[in-house]
Amino acid sequence: MLETFLNPRSIAVIGASQDVTKIRGRMLRILIDSGYDGVLLPVNPSHEKVQGLAAYPSISALPQRADMALIATPAEAVCDVLHECAGAGIMNAVVFTAGAAHGTEAERKLVSGMAAVARETGMRVLGPNCEGFFNVRDNVAGNFSPSIHLAAPQHRQGGSQRPISVVSQSGAVGFGLFTQLKQQGLTCRHVVTTGNEADLDCLDFVEHIVREGGSGPILMFVEGLKDGSRFARIAQLAADHEVPLVFCKVGNSVAGARAAASHTAHLTGAMTAYEATFKRYGVVKAEDSDQALTATKALACLPPARGNRVTVLSTSGGTGVWLADVCSAMGLEFPVPDEALHARLAKAIPAIGGIANPVDMSASVIEGHGEVLAEALRVMTEADYMDAVVIAMSLAAKDRIQQMQPALEPFLASTSLPVIIHSQAYATADNLDALARMGGMALGMRDTAFALKTLCDYGAFRRRWDAQKASVDQAVAEPRVSKASCREMVAQGRQAELLRAYGIALPPEVIVSSKEDAMRAARDMGYPVALKIVSAQVQHKTDVGALALNVRNDEELASAYDRVLANVARAVPEAAIQGMQVQKMMPPGLEMVVGVTRDPDFGHLLMVGLGGVFVELLRDVAFSPVPVSPLQAEELICSLKGFPLLEGLRGGQPGDVQALAALAHGLSRLAADHPDIIEEIDLNPVLVYESGVCAVDYLLIPRRDGSSVGPGSSGVRAEPATVRAEAALDRATTSTVSSDPLTVPASPPTFRAEPV
Amino acid sequence: MLETFLNPRSIAVIGASQDVTKIRGRMLRILIDSGYDGVLLPVNPSHEKVQGLAAYPSISALPQRADMALIATPAEAVCDVLHECAGAGIMNAVVFTAGAAHGTEAERKLVSGMAAVARETGMRVLGPNCEGFFNVRDNVAGNFSPSIHLAAPQHRQGGSQRPISVVSQSGAVGFGLFTQLKQQGLTCRHVVTTGNEADLDCLDFVEHIVREGGSGPILMFVEGLKDGSRFARIAQLAADHEVPLVFCKVGNSVAGARAAASHTAHLTGAMTAYEATFKRYGVVKAEDSDQALTATKALACLPPARGNRVTVLSTSGGTGVWLADVCSAMGLEFPVPDEALHARLAKAIPAIGGIANPVDMSASVIEGHGEVLAEALRVMTEADYMDAVVIAMSLAAKDRIQQMQPALEPFLASTSLPVIIHSQAYATADNLDALARMGGMALGMRDTAFALKTLCDYGAFRRRWDAQKASVDQAVAEPRVSKASCREMVAQGRQAELLRAYGIALPPEVIVSSKEDAMRAARDMGYPVALKIVSAQVQHKTDVGALALNVRNDEELASAYDRVLANVARAVPEAAIQGMQVQKMMPPGLEMVVGVTRDPDFGHLLMVGLGGVFVELLRDVAFSPVPVSPLQAEELICSLKGFPLLEGLRGGQPGDVQALAALAHGLSRLAADHPDIIEEIDLNPVLVYESGVCAVDYLLIPRRDGSSVGPGSSGVRAEPATVRAEAALDRATTSTVSSDPLTVPASPPTFRAEPV
Repeated sequence: MLETFLNPRSIAVIGASQDVTKIRGRMLRILIDSGYDGVLLPVNPSHEKVQGLAAYPSISALPQRADMALIATPAEAVCDVLHECAGAGIMNAVVFTAGAAHGTEAERKLVSGMAAVARETGMRVLGPNCEGFFNVRDNVAGNFSPSIHLAAPQHRQGGSQRPISVVSQSGAVGFGLFTQLKQQGLTCRHVVTTGNEADLDCLDFVEHIVREGGSGPILMFVEGLKDGSRFARIAQLAADHEVPLVFCKVGNSVAGARAAASHTAHLTGAMTAYEATFKRYGVVKAEDSDQALTATKALACLPPARGNRVTVLSTSGGTGVWLADVCSAMGLEFPVPDEALHARLAKAIPAIGGIANPVDMSASVIEGHGEVLAEALRVMTEADYMDAVVIAMSLAAKDRIQQMQPALEPFLASTSLPVIIHSQAYATADNLDALARMGGMALGMRDTAFALKTLCDYGAFRRRWDAQKASVDQAVAEPRVSKASCREMVAQGRQAELLRAYGIALPPEVIVSSKEDAMRAARDMGYPVALKIVSAQVQHKTDVGALALNVRNDEELASAYDRVLANVARAVPEAAIQGMQVQKMMPPGLEMVVGVTRDPDFGHLLMVGLGGVFVELLRDVAFSPVPVSPLQAEELICSLKGFPLLEGLRGGQPGDVQALAALAHGLSRLAADHPDIIEEIDLNPVLVYESGVCAVDYLLIPRRDGSSVGPGSSGVRAEPATVRAEAALDRATTSTVSSDPLTVPASPPTFRAEPV
Repeated sequence: MLETFLNPRSIAVIGASQDVTKIRGRMLRILIDSGYDGVLLPVNPSHEKVQGLAAYPSISALPQRADMALIATPAEAVCDVLHECAGAGIMNAVVFTAGAAHGTEAERKLVSGMAAVARETGMRVLGPNCEGFFNVRDNVAGNFSPSIHLAAPQHRQGGSQRPISVVSQSGAVGFGLFTQLKQQGLTCRHVVTTGNEADLDCLDFVEHIVREGGSGPILMFVEGLKDGSRFARIAQLAADHEVPLVFCKVGNSVAGARAAASHTAHLTGAMTAYEATFKRYGVVKAEDSDQALTATKALACLPPARGNRVTVLSTSGGTGVWLADVCSAMGLEFPVPDEALHARLAKAIPAIGGIANPVDMSASVIEGHGEVLAEALRVMTEADYMDAVVIAMSLAAKDRIQQMQPALEPFLASTSLPVIIHSQAYATADNLDALARMGGMALGMRDTAFALKTLCDYGAFRRRWDAQKASVDQAVAEPRVSKASCREMVAQGRQAELLRAYGIALPPEVIVSSKEDAMRAARDMGYPVALKIVSAQVQHKTDVGALALNVRNDEELASAYDRVLANVARAVPEAAIQGMQVQKMMPPGLEMVVGVTRDPDFGHLLMVGLGGVFVELLRDVAFSPVPVSPLQAEELICSLKGFPLLEGLRGGQPGDVQALAALAHGLSRLAADHPDIIEEIDLNPVLVYESGVCAVDYLLIPRRDGSSVGPGSSGVRAEPATVRAEAALDRATTSTVSSDPLTVPASPPTFRAEPV
C-alpha cells in the first residue's frame, strides 16, 4: 500500500533552492546525485531554473500531477502547503520541517494539524521532523542526509545477502546506521525515518516492507510506539514471512526516558511488554548500535543455526580459549569431539595443536594452503558435529585469505552452517576484499560471539515457531465464559466462580447457615478451616473479630462459630448475616505468583514468578502476551531463576509444574477472552504442591473504561475501580495458608525455605 | 632487574637463516627492519654472511659477549644451546621453540630442562613456545611477529598519552593486541609474550615495567598464574605506582578451561580469587578483546573521572537517548541541570533542542563553528556539573572536526575531565586525523560507555586507595592469638575459644556436671537451651539420644537431663562422661554465611553471603582477600544483591550491619594471622539481629600441609583433615536456632522470610 510512497515516479520539491548548504537545496541535490530516474519538479516562485532543472512558480503551476512532494517550509506554512498539494492531486508528502522546540504547544499544533490534513484528504504524510527516506533499490533519495554522498564501500559483501531495511524514528540514527551498513559493503533496500509520526509511523513501513516480499532483516530504532498490540501483530506477520526484526528500543533508562520525552511525542512504553513481545515473536533485541549492526549483518548474510553447538578452529591457542569463554558466557555450547572424531582430527591436525574444542590448529596451519583447515572442516562436517563455526586466524598478514582460499572457498560455498572468521589483529583491506568476494564474514571478538548468539537464538525461534504453526491453533477457541456471564460475575463479586470456570483451583469453600452445616463442611474439606462472616455490612472482618482462622477440629469450630457471631452482633448490631463461609486452610507449599496485567499499549500480559522475597527483592518474574498455551506457560516457568526450587532444590519435593502451567494457561485465556472486562488479576500466592496447585488469595481489578485494546486505544491507562475479592481484602490477616506447622497434614510437602 | 633483558645492546641470533619465511630467518629480518641499533651477531655454521651481516660458525666463535641470544632450534637441542650460551657469558635468552605437543611428556621435559638451566646458570630465559618481546621505545624486536611490518598508523593519538605495555602468555594474542593498539595510533612501550614460562613469567615483566617508572596502563592476557598471592602483591605495587592494570583472564568457561589446560601448563585458577583481587587493587577486568583495547586506550589517554556524573551533548536526540540508556545500564549517572544552569543553557542552545541530560543541541549546532557547543561546555564546566563528557555528532561529513575546531580544541586542551566523541556514522579519515591532532578520542557506542565506566570505576578506586593509605595501616597489627596458642587450640578442639578470641560471637555455652548447675546456667543465659553430653566416646549424639534441644524451662530441663544421661548409659555404657554442655538456643534472625576459604594460588579469601536459599540458589556471595578491615567488610556486605534484607525489607527490622562487619573482620584477621594453620572456616548460619550477631554453627578445617602460602607454594590443594566442631558435626539435627516460634523471645526481630 506504500508502493507509490516509496517509489514515486515524479517528485515535486517545494521551495527547491540553489543553495545546497540549506535543506531546501540539499533535498533536490541528493535526488539528482542519487540517480533518480523519475521526473523532478522543483517549485520556486522566483527562479525559472534551479540546479539546472526547470522550476515552477507554484504547486498549481506544475505541468503534471506529481506522485510525491518534499516539504521543508517553515512550520506555520506546512499545513497550507499540504492542502495545496492535495488540491493538485499529490497524495504523498515528506515533511522535513522540525518546526518548533520539542514538547511545546507549537510542535503539538504542527503534528495535529498535519494529522488532520492527512485524515481529511487521504494524503499519506511522513514527518514532521524527519530526515526522509531512501529507497536504495530504486534510487529514490527523498531525504537530506549526507549518506548518499559517502564513498562507496571498499568490500562489497559477497554470498547471498538478503537486502536490509532500516526503519527509525530518529533521522540521524536511521541514516547513521545505514551509512555503517553501507560502509561494511551490505546491500540495503529501504531506509525510512519517521520523526514525529503525524500520520505514517514506523509500523506502517515495517508492515509494507514485510508484505512487499523478498526482504532481509529490518532494523528498527524506536523511542516509543503508539500501539503496542499492533506491533505484536506486525511482529507475528514478520515471523510468518521469515523476516527477522532487529529492534533497538531506547528511552528505557531514567535519563533516556527523560530525553525521549522531551524529544518526541511518544510514550516510551513499558520495557516489560516490549520484551515479552520480542520473546514471543523472535524479535532480536539490540542494546546498542554495535549489537544492532552485528545482528542485522549476521541475519542478512548467514543462515540461522540449527542448534547451539559452536566449534572454534584457531591458529592460536590463546585466541581460541578467549573466544570459547566469550561465546560460552552468551550460552553457546562447545561439544567435545567423540572418540571416533577425535581420532580422525588427530590425523588432520599437527601434533603440536590441541584437539579439544576450541580446536588449536597451531600457527603451522598457515604454512600450506589451508590443507589442514580444509581437512578439519571436512571431517567435522561429516560427523555432524557442529551448528556454527568460527575460524580464528590473523588477517593482518598480506594475502592470508588468498593463501587459504583453496580451503575456505569450497567450504563457504557448500556449507549450510553460519561461518565467521575472527582475526586477533586488524584485518588488511586485501584480506577483507578477498574474503568478501567469496561470501565470508570477518568480525571482532565481541561481535563474533553476538552474531553467533543471534543466529542460534533465531534458529531456535524458527524451529519453535514452525512447530507451533503445525500444532492446532489455540487462539480460535471459543471463550469458556460468555462476555455477558463474565461481566455479570465480575459485577456481582462472583470472581471465584469466574476463576474456577477457567480451571483455576481455589481453596474449597462453602457458605453455610448453621453450626452443624459448618461442621459437616469442615469435615468434608478437611480441617483446619477458616470461618468468615458473610454480610454486606461487615467490611473489615479482622477489626471486629468477624473471622476465625486455623480452626482445627469440631470442638474449636463450635466455639469459633459462636464467637464470630457474638463479635459481629456486638460490633455491628445492624448487620444482616447472609451466612458463614467455611474455607479450607491450605497447607504450606512453594509460593508462586501468577497474574495478568494490562499494558496500555500492548494489552494483557501473563506474569509468573516465585513468590515472597523472590518477587520483591529479585524481580524474578517472566511475562508473555496472552493467550499462553500450557507449553508456553511451562517454558515461562522454566525461565525463572528460582526454577530449581520447583524441581526440589534443598531436599524439598518437586512441585507440580504441569498443574501450575495449566493454571497460568487458564488465567491467560480468561484475560484473552475478556480483555475489555479485565484490567488486572493477581493470584498471590499460588501454592504449588507435589501434586496440584491452589490460588490462595486473588485480586481482580475490572477495567473501568471497558473499551477493547486495539488500534483505536487511547494509550492512556485507566484509573481502575479496584474491586477486591473478599479473600484479598483482608489479605494481611486472613490468609488461608495454615501458619501453624503442627497442624499441617503430613502428606503435601512443605516447600517453606529456610529463614533468610 | 630486567633492563638488559628488554634492552640488550648485542644479540646473538642462533641458527640465523637467509630464508625469511622460516622463523630462524624472520627473527633476524625483524631486528634489522625494526631499526635495532645494537650489535647483531648471527650464528650459522655453514654461511659466512646471513642477510648481509657477518655470521659466526658457533656461539663460542662470537667476537664479543652478547647480552642476549634468540633461539629457535628444535626442542631436543634447546637446553644444550642454552648451556653453550651461558658458557659464552650470554645471560639472557628467548626460546621461540614450540617443541612438542601440548600436555605431552616431551613438552614437560623441555620446560623443566630450561628451568633447570636457568636455575643452575643464573641465566634469565623467556619461553619456550613464545613469540618473544618488542621493546618499542628502544627498537628491540626480539620476536617473529609480522606486526612490525604493518603499515604505520593513520591517526597518531595526540594529547599526553601514557605509553602502553602488553604482557601476554599467548604470543598471537599479545602481538594481536599490540597491532590493534598500534593501528589506533597509540604509543606502546613494551610487548612481552611469555609462552610456557619455564623461567621468566608475566608477573616478572609487569613488576619490572611498574618499577621502571613512567608507565601507562599494562594490558595483561593470562590463562593462569603460578602464584596468585604474588599477583596480589604486584597489583598492590601497581596501585601504589598509579599504573592501571587491564586484565584479560581466560580459561574460565568449561570449554575455555579445557583448551587452556591442553594449551599451557598453567592451572586456570579460581575466577573468584582473581575477581576478589581485581576489586581490592583496582585491576580492570576485560571480558573480550574489544573491552581490553577500549579500557587500555581510555586509561592511557584520558584522566580518571572524579565522579560518576556523565553529560551527553548530542546533535541528534535519538543518539543522545541511546547513549544515555547504554551508559545508564553500566551504572553511570546523568545529573539533571538545576534551575540556574538550565536557564544559562537555555540561552546557549537553540530553542529546537532539549535541555535535559542527554542535552539535545539539535543538528543546527553544526551550522556555525561550534559556538553553541563551546558555550554549552563553558557553562557546564563553570557549574561543576559533570565528571565526564560525551559529545555525539556525526563525523561522516568531511571536515566536520575542522569546522568545530574553534569549540573543541580549547576545551580539550583545558579540561581535566575525560571527553569522548561519538559518531553515529563511521567517521571519515580526515575527521579522525584532525581529532587525533587535538588529542581527542572517538569511539563507537559500546566502547564509549565502557570507556566511561572504566574511567569512573578507576577514579573511584584511586580515591578509595588514597584514602586507605592515609588511614592507619591495619596489616601490621600483631596476631591476636600467638601461633603456638592457635595451633594448640585447634589441636585440642578448642575452636570456640579461638573464634571468641577474634571477637566472633557464639551462642553462650557452659559445661556443667550437675542438674542444678545446668539449671542455673540455663537461667543465666535464658531459656530455651540445648543439653548435649560431653564425652569422647559419644560421637554421634543424635543417634543415641545424647542431646535434647529446645528445653524451655526448669521442669523440662530436669527431665531432659535425666533422659540424656539414661540414653547414653544404655547406648554407650562404657562412655566416660566429662559433663553436660548447656547451650543457649538462639532466636531466629536473618541468616548469613561468613567464611574464609583458601585458594591454592591466592591464599585466603573472606566470604560473606546471605544464607539459606540465597547462597544455594543464587550464589549471592562476595569475596575479598584477607585481612579485611571493618570498613571493607561493610562494603562487601553492601555489595550483596540481598542486602536490602539487612536494611529491613518487607517490614522486617534492620540487621546490625556493623556487628556483622566486625565479625567478618575478626574472622579475616584470624585467617591472616594464621594462614598456615587454617584451611577453611565456615560460620553458617550467622544470625543477624537488630542489635548484635551470633555464629550458631561453625566448621573449622585446619591445614594439613602446614606450609605457608607464598612463592614456594606447591599450587596443589591439600586434602585437608576435616576436624569439625561439635556444633557442626550434628548440624542437621542439633542446630541451636530455636525452631518453635512460640518460644522465641519477643524482642529480637525475626527476619524469617515468607515461605518460598
